[in-house]
Amino acid sequence: MIGSGLLIAGLSQCDLALGQSPDEKDLIFRTTDPRNAEPALGDLVKHWITPVKHFYVRSHAPNPVIDPESFTLQVEGLVKKPLTLSLDALSKLKQHTVTATLTCAGNRRAEFNKEGKVGGVQWQAGAIGNAKWTGVQLADVLEMAQLTDNARHVWFEGLDEIKRDNGTIPFGASIPIEKAMQTEPDIGALLVTQMNGRPLTADHGFPLRTVVPGYIGARSVKWLGKILVSDQPSTNHYVATAYKIVKQTKPLDWKEAGPIYRFPINAAIAADEEISLGPGTFRISGYVLPSGISGARIRRVQVSTDSGDTWVNAELTGAEQDYCWRLWNAKIKVTESTTEVIARATDTKGGFMPYRVPWNAKGYLQNSWYRVPVKVQ
Amino acid sequence: MIGSGLLIAGLSQCDLALGQSPDEKDLIFRTTDPRNAEPALGDLVKHWITPVKHFYVRSHAPNPVIDPESFTLQVEGLVKKPLTLSLDALSKLKQHTVTATLTCAGNRRAEFNKEGKVGGVQWQAGAIGNAKWTGVQLADVLEMAQLTDNARHVWFEGLDEIKRDNGTIPFGASIPIEKAMQTEPDIGALLVTQMNGRPLTADHGFPLRTVVPGYIGARSVKWLGKILVSDQPSTNHYVATAYKIVKQTKPLDWKEAGPIYRFPINAAIAADEEISLGPGTFRISGYVLPSGISGARIRRVQVSTDSGDTWVNAELTGAEQDYCWRLWNAKIKVTESTTEVIARATDTKGGFMPYRVPWNAKGYLQNSWYRVPVKVQ
Repeated sequence: MIGSGLLIAGLSQCDLALGQSPDEKDLIFRTTDPRNAEPALGDLVKHWITPVKHFYVRSHAPNPVIDPESFTLQVEGLVKKPLTLSLDALSKLKQHTVTATLTCAGNRRAEFNKEGKVGGVQWQAGAIGNAKWTGVQLADVLEMAQLTDNARHVWFEGLDEIKRDNGTIPFGASIPIEKAMQTEPDIGALLVTQMNGRPLTADHGFPLRTVVPGYIGARSVKWLGKILVSDQPSTNHYVATAYKIVKQTKPLDWKEAGPIYRFPINAAIAADEEISLGPGTFRISGYVLPSGISGARIRRVQVSTDSGDTWVNAELTGAEQDYCWRLWNAKIKVTESTTEVIARATDTKGGFMPYRVPWNAKGYLQNSWYRVPVKVQ
Repeated sequence: MIGSGLLIAGLSQCDLALGQSPDEKDLIFRTTDPRNAEPALGDLVKHWITPVKHFYVRSHAPNPVIDPESFTLQVEGLVKKPLTLSLDALSKLKQHTVTATLTCAGNRRAEFNKEGKVGGVQWQAGAIGNAKWTGVQLADVLEMAQLTDNARHVWFEGLDEIKRDNGTIPFGASIPIEKAMQTEPDIGALLVTQMNGRPLTADHGFPLRTVVPGYIGARSVKWLGKILVSDQPSTNHYVATAYKIVKQTKPLDWKEAGPIYRFPINAAIAADEEISLGPGTFRISGYVLPSGISGARIRRVQVSTDSGDTWVNAELTGAEQDYCWRLWNAKIKVTESTTEVIARATDTKGGFMPYRVPWNAKGYLQNSWYRVPVKVQ
């Protein structure tokens, strides 16, 4: 098993001793090679800080096996002092801990299939999680490397090897220099070694990953091996082509679309694909994430059991912080005529969940009203 | 009057003899310096081909006065043979006529003000028009200039002089190379000298302009003086900063947003800001534009007089062609309880007018349900 070496390196061996993959009981695997998995929503909304075992995993290739002793991070491109940093060197820089929600741009992708098949990992609503990330500010590292005047974007490259066409490419991302240089209290990006106070697991990028609060998960590159400063966005496949909103997967369509950076507002109800209930009053719960903009806060989560004719405000729980989700619960009234429960939300930066999201070929950014069919018994 | 010299050069002098601007009776001026004007909607929807006098005008600076005898177009950048082309040289290349709708990305901008003030020209729904454009295929000119292998985007620069900061800049745009190289029957871009069979007027770019079917009007640069082939999108203000969907006008927000190229589906009802009617049955009309994608056709225009509870299908008129609008009319029933007429539309490429469009700081791409308040007498 590819992950084993890393688990040994990064974490305890207890789970391995059980003789089974430690996470198949905690996550629903959409694909196993590469590893792509999301938690059951009931598990997900139990904690404001998502336990690592219930944190979704998104990979494009097998987890690379990295020796932390010999590992180095390269910093190059439009900098006056290129750097080669060991984990030890990174550990001597000022450490910061930031709580931030990561969510896959493809979260809720499967809902697009009603209108037209979309490829890619068939995520339901669990490709999201909130964790405490510890590491160094990207800005501090770039400061050490001394940006040149024409620095405009910062590229990240993973140490994974993704098979494409005739060769392999790393997973790559980039972020605008203005975001990269943001420092406390609104840190633009962290170079992370710890998740929820423990070393990263292999699935989450051991030994080093990027975390970019407010941006889609794809910009938070795992197994980070290289930082390259450039005058333009990364030319890596996952910036120049994938992770864009397109109607067709043709060169012109890719070129016309800009890379996705921030995540939009989103919410889900923690329920199975269908709920079976008798008429009566019930309490339901879920999560809600404001737009990935500094200062955005959830204004309101509303639920409806009569097809949107009337709405009930949900109660919000969990801390209210930049780039972090909240949890919610609401009392709903199910009647003989109820056919579904609907949830929608708005935030303080003008974000709202629309009635419908335009279909796109890769199934990104599905954040329409969240609907769960109800079967009244 | 700045326009006069050009009107003499480009068109007849009849109107000038009247001693007044020829177009103040035909267009509603939102600003006069620079000239920004839209027709009354009642005038606009009378003809599938919009008469030049009722075609909206969008300018960022005074109309430049250009001598057609000495005028040349420069073609440079990533080409093996840079070109300098006179109007005479252009006239000897194969001429094409394409009917295409142009629309300002800011059409219907004023509607955003209900949610929060947006700057810029306060367009209502008249910043749109459909015309016959005659000129040469951009692809033919680029073919002559011989693109190098790293050609990725084609920049256009106008001869207008827009005051910004301490100096002046030309209006600029760029389009992806894949669009630029499209030829008949789906011409990507035309270098246009004639509009509706007559030389361009000063307001519409005399003597030469770009027309990019399917794209927002801002990519169809007027008074075209230079074409530059590059490996990246134009760095001109109107590509790198303006004409983007942003929540705030800050460097990071601009960097995070890609340039807008295609226009989305849109429609309007040709009526004043408020309609006064008695109860009864009436016929209303309007325009509808499918998404700026090859092959997109209007599926349906629907109108409602009961706040969206029930919808009536409109009748579509006018030719059905790529990148062109259609006109529509519908019989509506106004009752004592009618408070507004609403129009919405869908197209064959998944385009639909949403209930609501997220507010953006520059007020672009407003294409939500079109609403006209009704006062029942």
